[in-house]
Amino acid sequence: MTGKVYLVGAGPGDPELLTLKAVRLLRSADVVLHDELVGAEILGFVPASSQIHNVGKRAGQKSTSQEEINALLVQYALMGLQVVRLKGGDPLIFGRAGEEIEALREANIEFEIVPGITAALGAAADFQIPLTHRRLASSLIVLTGHRCKDGDTDWPESIPATATVLIYMPGYNFIVTARNLVAAGVKPETPCAIVSKATSQDEQIYQTTVQELPSAPRLAAPTLLVVGEVVRLSKSASVSHLLASHAYSEFVQSEAAFFTSTHKQDSIQERSL
Amino acid sequence: MTGKVYLVGAGPGDPELLTLKAVRLLRSADVVLHDELVGAEILGFVPASSQIHNVGKRAGQKSTSQEEINALLVQYALMGLQVVRLKGGDPLIFGRAGEEIEALREANIEFEIVPGITAALGAAADFQIPLTHRRLASSLIVLTGHRCKDGDTDWPESIPATATVLIYMPGYNFIVTARNLVAAGVKPETPCAIVSKATSQDEQIYQTTVQELPSAPRLAAPTLLVVGEVVRLSKSASVSHLLASHAYSEFVQSEAAFFTSTHKQDSIQERSL
Repeated sequence: MTGKVYLVGAGPGDPELLTLKAVRLLRSADVVLHDELVGAEILGFVPASSQIHNVGKRAGQKSTSQEEINALLVQYALMGLQVVRLKGGDPLIFGRAGEEIEALREANIEFEIVPGITAALGAAADFQIPLTHRRLASSLIVLTGHRCKDGDTDWPESIPATATVLIYMPGYNFIVTARNLVAAGVKPETPCAIVSKATSQDEQIYQTTVQELPSAPRLAAPTLLVVGEVVRLSKSASVSHLLASHAYSEFVQSEAAFFTSTHKQDSIQERSL
Repeated sequence: MTGKVYLVGAGPGDPELLTLKAVRLLRSADVVLHDELVGAEILGFVPASSQIHNVGKRAGQKSTSQEEINALLVQYALMGLQVVRLKGGDPLIFGRAGEEIEALREANIEFEIVPGITAALGAAADFQIPLTHRRLASSLIVLTGHRCKDGDTDWPESIPATATVLIYMPGYNFIVTARNLVAAGVKPETPCAIVSKATSQDEQIYQTTVQELPSAPRLAAPTLLVVGEVVRLSKSASVSHLLASHAYSEFVQSEAAFFTSTHKQDSIQERSL
């Protein structure tokens, strides 16, 4: 009998952010093929008798190609195994699941997709950034900073001032990123934050503005870049930074209740990095 | 001693899509304030001795105002209770968490945010729509169809052909939605899908094109509208529909391996709604 393949989201890193369904499937998997960024604690749910393969990309080491991964999924399923393809975050956002889906359909292998907490949601939760906000952000734009081999990332021609932009895998070429953002209409003084290793114990955030982004430090991968007015609401937003912004006085008027108490300002400063 | 508030994402509906952390917090909550769309199975994790309040909006019934919810969160925390504010999907995407965060900070109440599977990820997983795709979609645009009381939803001026658009709470005014999409540069023949009650046992999908959207049926809320070339890859994409599309022949060339086997076409037709 042919087995079944589960394309499962492992979430952003914290093992507690796995779904109940992901845990159930890991516990009953015969074989798990996982990305590099999936941690040991998460793999700890897999029975000791099952096979675990790291098919992720590792710097300096040859990675398993997408074609090889597709072939392995089909091959294990044809052997009658329950196969979990475990991907960081959610499988359907920048996870190349489309190619695995095509390969599985082509081979007529039964499969199911289990969503995961995508990195941006983990980062936003930990640093308390409301991605949408009644007054500040009515839409999200999710991009990747990496270029595919097939062509350039398509940047939107225009980004509304009320959009929160989430850039996955932003890399470190912040000069180009800042230029692309400004070319799409993002104001140079718009706040932004680089989040490193979201939801892990080593997570870090660096807050700046689009115009100052080129001088940001190279935080450890995986990173995520959040751009938009809502970044001001992060728990780590420092008051001194807010004061430097051109939009600050306008912002204070609408957020008066939130920022005027001295007590609150102290508590923000304490929490800033 | 002051209690703590957890703003927790309940996911799209399927109780198995709760995170381990959400389940742990529900099991130890003294009081749970939940949205209307959170189901009984999910609330079943809350101890029988704890309080459960539905603060959601119900058609025809007066809902608890955002200000009342904010006040309740603060009040219960000041009583020393562990409070879970349980929101459908993820708390930080169209969940008005920003206002609850502001109220909690203002009152100096300790709080934590726990991300959840946002509706679009649940819908995409169940209907096997890769939201990004190497050849077809390099970005996501997430919008809401609802207008805030404070002002209009800001539509992007231009939507790239390579973007997948996700419209939360699209409502039923599909004439306006289609017009807004086309005004932003989306081609009328672009495929789209209305997903109803994603990840629940009653989930449904209706696939059409932007130009035919105005004649779509009114599927039961909550709904989500997915717009973009990737909708063609959905497991429910019917071949007859694909044939009606102007872009079909171009598409077939790149996806030849996927669509040419008769076997595959049968399997797609069987699964189409």
